[in-house]
Amino acid sequence: MWDDLARIGREASTGGYRRYAWTGADTDCRAWFREQAESRGLRNETDRNGNLWAWLGDPEAGDAVVTGSHLDSVPDGGAFDGPLGVVSAFAALDELRARGTRLTKPLAITAFGDEEGARFGVACVGSRLSAGQLTREQAHALRATDGTTLPQAMEAAGYDPDAIGPDPERLGRIGALVELHVEQGRALDLTNAPVGLASAVWPHGRWRFDFHGEANHAGTTRIEDRRDPMLPYAETVLAARREAELAGALATFGKVLVQPGGVNAIPSLVSAWLDSRAADPSSLDTVVGAVESAARDAATRSGVELDVVRESFTPLVEFGHALRDELARILGRTSNAPLPVIPSGAGHDAGILSASVPTAMLFVRNPTGISHSPAESATEDDCVAGVRALADVLEGLACA
Amino acid sequence: MWDDLARIGREASTGGYRRYAWTGADTDCRAWFREQAESRGLRNETDRNGNLWAWLGDPEAGDAVVTGSHLDSVPDGGAFDGPLGVVSAFAALDELRARGTRLTKPLAITAFGDEEGARFGVACVGSRLSAGQLTREQAHALRATDGTTLPQAMEAAGYDPDAIGPDPERLGRIGALVELHVEQGRALDLTNAPVGLASAVWPHGRWRFDFHGEANHAGTTRIEDRRDPMLPYAETVLAARREAELAGALATFGKVLVQPGGVNAIPSLVSAWLDSRAADPSSLDTVVGAVESAARDAATRSGVELDVVRESFTPLVEFGHALRDELARILGRTSNAPLPVIPSGAGHDAGILSASVPTAMLFVRNPTGISHSPAESATEDDCVAGVRALADVLEGLACA
Repeated sequence: MWDDLARIGREASTGGYRRYAWTGADTDCRAWFREQAESRGLRNETDRNGNLWAWLGDPEAGDAVVTGSHLDSVPDGGAFDGPLGVVSAFAALDELRARGTRLTKPLAITAFGDEEGARFGVACVGSRLSAGQLTREQAHALRATDGTTLPQAMEAAGYDPDAIGPDPERLGRIGALVELHVEQGRALDLTNAPVGLASAVWPHGRWRFDFHGEANHAGTTRIEDRRDPMLPYAETVLAARREAELAGALATFGKVLVQPGGVNAIPSLVSAWLDSRAADPSSLDTVVGAVESAARDAATRSGVELDVVRESFTPLVEFGHALRDELARILGRTSNAPLPVIPSGAGHDAGILSASVPTAMLFVRNPTGISHSPAESATEDDCVAGVRALADVLEGLACA
Repeated sequence: MWDDLARIGREASTGGYRRYAWTGADTDCRAWFREQAESRGLRNETDRNGNLWAWLGDPEAGDAVVTGSHLDSVPDGGAFDGPLGVVSAFAALDELRARGTRLTKPLAITAFGDEEGARFGVACVGSRLSAGQLTREQAHALRATDGTTLPQAMEAAGYDPDAIGPDPERLGRIGALVELHVEQGRALDLTNAPVGLASAVWPHGRWRFDFHGEANHAGTTRIEDRRDPMLPYAETVLAARREAELAGALATFGKVLVQPGGVNAIPSLVSAWLDSRAADPSSLDTVVGAVESAARDAATRSGVELDVVRESFTPLVEFGHALRDELARILGRTSNAPLPVIPSGAGHDAGILSASVPTAMLFVRNPTGISHSPAESATEDDCVAGVRALADVLEGLACA
């Protein structure tokens, strides 16, 4: 099962995955999902937003136990981010069948569409649309860097872009949603635990900093006549790291574009994107405010103008204590150490849907913490421990 | 004449020029040159390295007086850098004919190919090849960011890349080469003179800094686990400015490329180019050495590996005193103030060729000093003064 999926969308030159929404690789991943469902006698269903569901039992009965994750990837992403949750879902069902478990509630396995937002810039499009957190109009306006719009891409993949929108009826069938995901940091590694529970998703956002200077010849313009926007950008990068350390938060500049971008030209414009996250909204405000303030001071000193725009923002998501406690209780039966409960700096479909239905997350240890890179990893033993924990959780929830 | 040329390769969105070697805009500029030559009864010649020549009189007679510049541009460059020298050459010939001057030596107007190096990263490719300062093998290895090699680009433009190489015979015909160029700084503006003479071209070069870090998730990787190459890059930008100020030199980072370049990804690689120039070689060594040392310290502190490669270097060029004094004498006859003699921080074909033939340069005042930008300018009066000075010089040299 894992081997068939591992071949899809892999870039030979990097060893990373390029599975972007509504591309050929995405279509191949979806076909793999349907085959896995059919081979287990599950009933395939694709919702209006392109999310995949594979049902065991009657969806209409309600109070369903649902598990799954996503199959798309970031550019040159790793093999586990997303797929591990879907593969583990099928494997957990196999485990329950091997145990001879009789489920009393309907069970569904899901794969949400376009979680990473690698192509259209907005993450968790499938779950956001279903939860009504992204409108049809907003989704229709999304455009890839090559100019393709989301509706064009959906049509090219054989889906109807006019059908998208909120799906409260389908979400209303769900009694509990559990997403298993490879950890994207080292918290489990540091506590020496193969599996953990999610406490919350940190509030996070993206801010675009445009430093407007004056293009000029790098070989002839006197230092005192320059308005070089690269200098305040450099000071802002250092300020971001300093403020993140002070607040125990995260702040990163991973994308920067320079105009005109000639080796012998002082730039006219440096555009840079700040990604920042913190455990609570006020820490995040403090970090971003301090970075912006440092950027403004540095820009003024260099005679450079600065525009700052917040391009996206996701507020703090606390996973419901009731479901989390229930999972801790179920898993506590078979484990002799208390399960670590850890926050996530990254967004997830389960975080988006927590506003609509009870959700929880299981994390599987990542020994290096490396994520969004081909070097992302999880040991086979830990993946098996994840499947077993997920099977225990499904049994505990669906046989209740 | 100026209007026809002004239309070619202009980017509407910026008002700047994008005339890169061996592109359609370059071909159009070359066609413009040939038309100008033909309409004046000059004989067109293209040499093995793609430099254009328009002859009046017999090239084989030797001791020719040659004037011209280049027609290609940096990304979004101004209208004057290069073209002013070529247009002024044709206009000076018109002026000489209007005066009824009889030349006793052959005269040529030239346009050297690929002076800016905007596409393949090496400046003055046409004159370097002819002077034997760039080998055919080195030129054949040049590659644009889109992967196109120089030979592929030459072939696509209808030129034979296998023909390129040193051209001592053609250079041997030249008795004196005078390049007129818009000034790229404010020295003439500060001394209130429309025209000046070049003393020297500062030694200058380009160094590529590759900061190798580790790609990771910007939202989940702890600060202490990061190896983020953007941080030492930022420190290096600030060190370059600091060291340039200390040494009275210039140092600029105008181009930076980030991999993978995702907003939520810590970069695996930041590649940045340092352009540095100084009045003398030892100041330049001091600046570049100090910047590299600061970069290495910063890289080590961030757990980042650094590679530094010198991609190009042009040593100090002093224009020959004999020809410069001759020009000062000729121009002194018609001027009542002594002509300013100023250095150039920028490289020029005349600087490259000064190792092979007697060369000199005339500069035309640039009121803002702005260069390599659409805002580059020269007043009509100053351009006319430049043409008149060039005509005087050609008359003085070619009627001797």
